[in-house]
Amino acid sequence: METGNRPIGVFDSGVGGLTVAQAIRQILPGEQIVYFGDTAHLPYGDKSEEAIRGYSGKITEFLLGYDAKVVLIACNSASASAYEALLAEYGNRVIILDVINPVVEYCASRNFQRLGVIGTKVTVNSGTYTRKLKEASPTTSVVSLATPLLVPMIEEGFIFDDISNAIIRTYLSDQKLNDIDGLILGCTHYPIIRNQISKFFNFSVEVVDSARIVAVRLREILEEHNLVNRGKPGEDLFFVSDFTDYFEKIARMFFESSINLRRADIWS
Amino acid sequence: METGNRPIGVFDSGVGGLTVAQAIRQILPGEQIVYFGDTAHLPYGDKSEEAIRGYSGKITEFLLGYDAKVVLIACNSASASAYEALLAEYGNRVIILDVINPVVEYCASRNFQRLGVIGTKVTVNSGTYTRKLKEASPTTSVVSLATPLLVPMIEEGFIFDDISNAIIRTYLSDQKLNDIDGLILGCTHYPIIRNQISKFFNFSVEVVDSARIVAVRLREILEEHNLVNRGKPGEDLFFVSDFTDYFEKIARMFFESSINLRRADIWS
Repeated sequence: METGNRPIGVFDSGVGGLTVAQAIRQILPGEQIVYFGDTAHLPYGDKSEEAIRGYSGKITEFLLGYDAKVVLIACNSASASAYEALLAEYGNRVIILDVINPVVEYCASRNFQRLGVIGTKVTVNSGTYTRKLKEASPTTSVVSLATPLLVPMIEEGFIFDDISNAIIRTYLSDQKLNDIDGLILGCTHYPIIRNQISKFFNFSVEVVDSARIVAVRLREILEEHNLVNRGKPGEDLFFVSDFTDYFEKIARMFFESSINLRRADIWS
Repeated sequence: METGNRPIGVFDSGVGGLTVAQAIRQILPGEQIVYFGDTAHLPYGDKSEEAIRGYSGKITEFLLGYDAKVVLIACNSASASAYEALLAEYGNRVIILDVINPVVEYCASRNFQRLGVIGTKVTVNSGTYTRKLKEASPTTSVVSLATPLLVPMIEEGFIFDDISNAIIRTYLSDQKLNDIDGLILGCTHYPIIRNQISKFFNFSVEVVDSARIVAVRLREILEEHNLVNRGKPGEDLFFVSDFTDYFEKIARMFFESSINLRRADIWS
């Protein structure tokens, strides 16, 4: 049975997960993507774990309505809060993939001495990266730091300027991050300022960006399950739960090409 | 008939509206407040007008469930997007008050030459302040500017420091604001940085903060309608649609005393 022509479902709290969709577009150009950005509830970084699990379940149902062969949680806050719950509830019907586990596996293979993780409050407070890294790579010491102003800073276009340099410097000068040899960007927005972060560390720290790592892992999984699309892919679809021109405008920053966002109200 | 013992309903997208609740507490110490912060959907500043109208209607129903004698929209984005709709739907059952009209009336009485307005994207793009000020005070020229990074900046505690000075300077140096003699803080978060803003203008610009103006207008309205509470007020109640420790922590910055936030899930 050929089922490879079903789409890859991807979701995020907003448009930041488009950095992951973009990496999938590059690494798996033959696949159709159905993307859902929960802009009605964005940002997830400040929401409770319980709320995020509820949103993630409903979005998964929506993506299953498009017969998705994979549901990829392209959001660190949702990966930290909702991955296990989604796996328990939907794991027998669809492949559930998050953005944290593939990065943890990658980092274990790199044998870092001291690894930093930056992300939203939800991601950092969940302790998910720390716990999983300690299991996968017991000799690596892990330090994590919430950097909540980075998402709105990036979304408002404060990048590669004095303000973003000052904010990045304030956060990354935290003594917790002294002597790290790797830094995980634990938020799908952060690849936009990856070069600024590398520069802060004078390029002496490996900055680990999940988008590419996750897309590569997705390709392996599709191959293992014989789910690679061999036919002509359908057109990518991009949905948001609340629509404004602003989302369409900044979507371009994350996806590197113009896309049409459609509104899908799955909450009322 | 004495109906003054019913509470004042106050709502906002989150905890910023507590600056207004705090002003009510000071100016009307004999009144009970029932506050609702829609933290599940915060911030409203990036949401669509349609979504905000939907949220505001449901919150008004919730406050009417507490028999509120007034529903005060303590959020500029919701005042700009939803005031007319709430008035049309609930105006015959309860007094609806917003944070924009009282400020417009105040500014008309001050005869400004050139008035600036800063706020979220929704507030500024709605053009509500500009339209209403032109009607109320035709000789005043009005310029408005969206300053979307200020809310997350304040919420993350970047105040009275180099970063907040740089962000405030970047926004307020906009040539649109040249030669203003008054500046409306069109967001209930901004009173927290009122002094920094005054200092940027070397104290030569009147910085108009809505919280106190709205609380004074509320007192007048209660007196006009013979709705002032003459008895012992009930205990203030503070509800949020999504609960995290973080909200409780920052609530203190806005309300100047410790409060217990309770979760009220009115969406599912």
